[in-house]
Amino acid sequence: MDEIKNSGTRIAPRTLSGFMELLPAPQQQMERIMETLRTTYARYGFTPLDTPIIESTDVLLAKGGGETEKQVYRFQKGDADLSLRFDLTVPLAKYVALHYGDLAFPFRRYQIGKVYRGERAQRGRFREFYQADIDIIGDGKLDIVSEAEIPSIIYRTFTALGLRRFQIRVNNRKILNGFYAMQGLSEKSGDIMRTVDKLDKIGAEKVGALLRDELELSADQAKEILAFIAIRGTNAEVIAALEGYSGKNELFDLGLDELKTVVRYLGAFGVPETNFAVDLTIARGLDYYTGTVYETTLLDHPEIGSVCSGGRYDNLAEYYTDKQLPGVGISIGLTRLFYVLGEQGMLSESMLTAPADILIIPMTEDMTAAVSLATDLRDAGVRTQLYTEQKKFKAKMNYADKLGIPYVIFLGEDEINAGVIACKDMQSGEQTTLNFEETLNRIRAGLAEKNAGAVIVEK
Amino acid sequence: MDEIKNSGTRIAPRTLSGFMELLPAPQQQMERIMETLRTTYARYGFTPLDTPIIESTDVLLAKGGGETEKQVYRFQKGDADLSLRFDLTVPLAKYVALHYGDLAFPFRRYQIGKVYRGERAQRGRFREFYQADIDIIGDGKLDIVSEAEIPSIIYRTFTALGLRRFQIRVNNRKILNGFYAMQGLSEKSGDIMRTVDKLDKIGAEKVGALLRDELELSADQAKEILAFIAIRGTNAEVIAALEGYSGKNELFDLGLDELKTVVRYLGAFGVPETNFAVDLTIARGLDYYTGTVYETTLLDHPEIGSVCSGGRYDNLAEYYTDKQLPGVGISIGLTRLFYVLGEQGMLSESMLTAPADILIIPMTEDMTAAVSLATDLRDAGVRTQLYTEQKKFKAKMNYADKLGIPYVIFLGEDEINAGVIACKDMQSGEQTTLNFEETLNRIRAGLAEKNAGAVIVEK
Repeated sequence: MDEIKNSGTRIAPRTLSGFMELLPAPQQQMERIMETLRTTYARYGFTPLDTPIIESTDVLLAKGGGETEKQVYRFQKGDADLSLRFDLTVPLAKYVALHYGDLAFPFRRYQIGKVYRGERAQRGRFREFYQADIDIIGDGKLDIVSEAEIPSIIYRTFTALGLRRFQIRVNNRKILNGFYAMQGLSEKSGDIMRTVDKLDKIGAEKVGALLRDELELSADQAKEILAFIAIRGTNAEVIAALEGYSGKNELFDLGLDELKTVVRYLGAFGVPETNFAVDLTIARGLDYYTGTVYETTLLDHPEIGSVCSGGRYDNLAEYYTDKQLPGVGISIGLTRLFYVLGEQGMLSESMLTAPADILIIPMTEDMTAAVSLATDLRDAGVRTQLYTEQKKFKAKMNYADKLGIPYVIFLGEDEINAGVIACKDMQSGEQTTLNFEETLNRIRAGLAEKNAGAVIVEK
Repeated sequence: MDEIKNSGTRIAPRTLSGFMELLPAPQQQMERIMETLRTTYARYGFTPLDTPIIESTDVLLAKGGGETEKQVYRFQKGDADLSLRFDLTVPLAKYVALHYGDLAFPFRRYQIGKVYRGERAQRGRFREFYQADIDIIGDGKLDIVSEAEIPSIIYRTFTALGLRRFQIRVNNRKILNGFYAMQGLSEKSGDIMRTVDKLDKIGAEKVGALLRDELELSADQAKEILAFIAIRGTNAEVIAALEGYSGKNELFDLGLDELKTVVRYLGAFGVPETNFAVDLTIARGLDYYTGTVYETTLLDHPEIGSVCSGGRYDNLAEYYTDKQLPGVGISIGLTRLFYVLGEQGMLSESMLTAPADILIIPMTEDMTAAVSLATDLRDAGVRTQLYTEQKKFKAKMNYADKLGIPYVIFLGEDEINAGVIACKDMQSGEQTTLNFEETLNRIRAGLAEKNAGAVIVEK
């Protein structure tokens, strides 16, 4: 690589395409979302992890193959062959295998971190993006209750963010694999699932044609499959329809039992049926999943696909250890979700995004009193800025306006001598002159109101 | 690079040397520290930023040259010459230059993020590490008050973390440059400062010898410099001694005025003199700084050097824009600080690091009641885990013990029928049987007590 020349000429500042770099106001919205995720995940007993972004390539690509490998950012540094992580699951597998003896199982962790994929740059696709993952890893075994708990956490997270019109769609791979075994199609089940996955895009007729022509299924087999995935209705209705297939295949029966258990516990976990549906068309592409699988769609925006997906797997870390580590997890593609919410106008316009709740404008040359007031307000927990630049009064007010700072305090000789504070509510225009405690109470009450809304708004 | 082979053999899981990967308990301590930083910085009116870890190499190395460039992780991806950021200052400069029109000035931002330097691996040195930066950027000008505000934020941050025995040492480059100009040594001032910087390590005598022998200063000049940097005492005493030099050089006088202003405002910002000292030996290596400079030392561990450094600069983004962007900032090397605190045994052993406050152990086969109780506790804001694995009772208690979960709830038929909860305080061993509200109140009171301590403890 060439040496970088520094000839004294300027370099045009720019951010790489496919990399999200937010202005301060939207960054505040993103921070609010991340904080909500951290708080909710912690409330469900998950511990935060933070693994390196760079790993040895042989560790990161132990599984090998696939589309992902082509997209990996991989490079040499000295003798080392290094790669940037492309998801948070492989680092988790490495972590659990490496630190197995130090962990207590079931091991519940969340991780919110950046991952890297050198995809072709296009609008809404990111090369650096946040994933927010939760997983529960068992040692040898993992009880089915966890498979109901995981979607309940997503329900809590999404409602805490302000979303209501979403649906967590649930299926069970054992049901699918058992059903295909009944039809004598076990060996083609992977191909069939990939074909069925196109149902939403191309419709039932074309899926049927593909099943017959490309996968060489009989007309009867294709018909059976289309009938199966056409099962619709309330969760109780879908389960009732599935009962009609029971007793013919052990795996199917086991999967149906699991699905019934998951549906039953989801109620106790506080998830209303409106936010959750058994959907036999959900398969998840990866062979990795072996039990319950999840996808989450925004009801008003089905076109953007699943915003949160995952499922149950039997063997997290088989490339690193002979320990059997089954688990269940789900992942939110946070950067893409944030982008889509912005595009759809679903990020709150009323949420405070200012860097401060109060701007103090000193009206005296010596700023000691203003500095002391700022210190007192900060000690009281209020986010406070002090405007100390020599500018015209109007420029100072413009600063507060441009940032959306909700309260401005003017502190002149008169106020200092009288021990009072002149404070303007920038939204209502109302100005009060009160003592410190009264001013603080007024601001706190106002902030509680202004901060009451959620970061995501549905129209 | 070779294709990664996946021959079915296992890859030994490992983490790269120089990359910190924490176990869950210390990770909780690290999270607590980061949360304290975020909260404190926000309280001072700083807005969070999150810039990409990867930048175009020509942007990142626009300044060029220096030791840093050799350490950069740099690689090709397709046609692009890319590098991982090695600090948060260059990305800030790029950000401000790029988004200048969208920002309000003074622009106050904090950023806590990973940076990368391919240093030689050695104990306590990291190739991936967090920096936690705050900066205030002016547009054309920036008032001196900001130079007092920055160390006051560090004071608040460190005290919030539990540190008391630290000192923020402050100097002003204008005083140093002015003093050297008085001695007719302006052209050698950079070399002299680098030599004087060795004072703590090699002592005054050897510094004197280096000044005479290597920098070819006269005996008088060397004596003057040693006398100057030997000025000690309270801040008032040091300033009084500096007044003795005033009236001879304009830059010196300006620097002394600035220093006096900074010292005066620091009191109003709530910083006690015990945590803050004027120290004429502080210069900071970089020519970049033009006014107040800071270093922060732990009084009981001077050997680890400065844990938080920074200063005033006149031209943040000169490589990207002709806009004059003066600023002042300070940076905590968070990963190294965390490592050192751990080595010194200064991370609290009593701080709760468990993933949950409560573990519910269901004593019935059907777990609906336990799931409902977990849901109610989570709704009440308590971090709750549900233990659903089929294990012996002792194994379940060991799980709570190993993780340090402070409360365990047993929920059997008797409790469910009576509408009560059996709850054990794992530390005191005390067990209560109370209704939901009473149990919640007891746990909340206990948690408030257990969470009262700071994450850092001094011995």
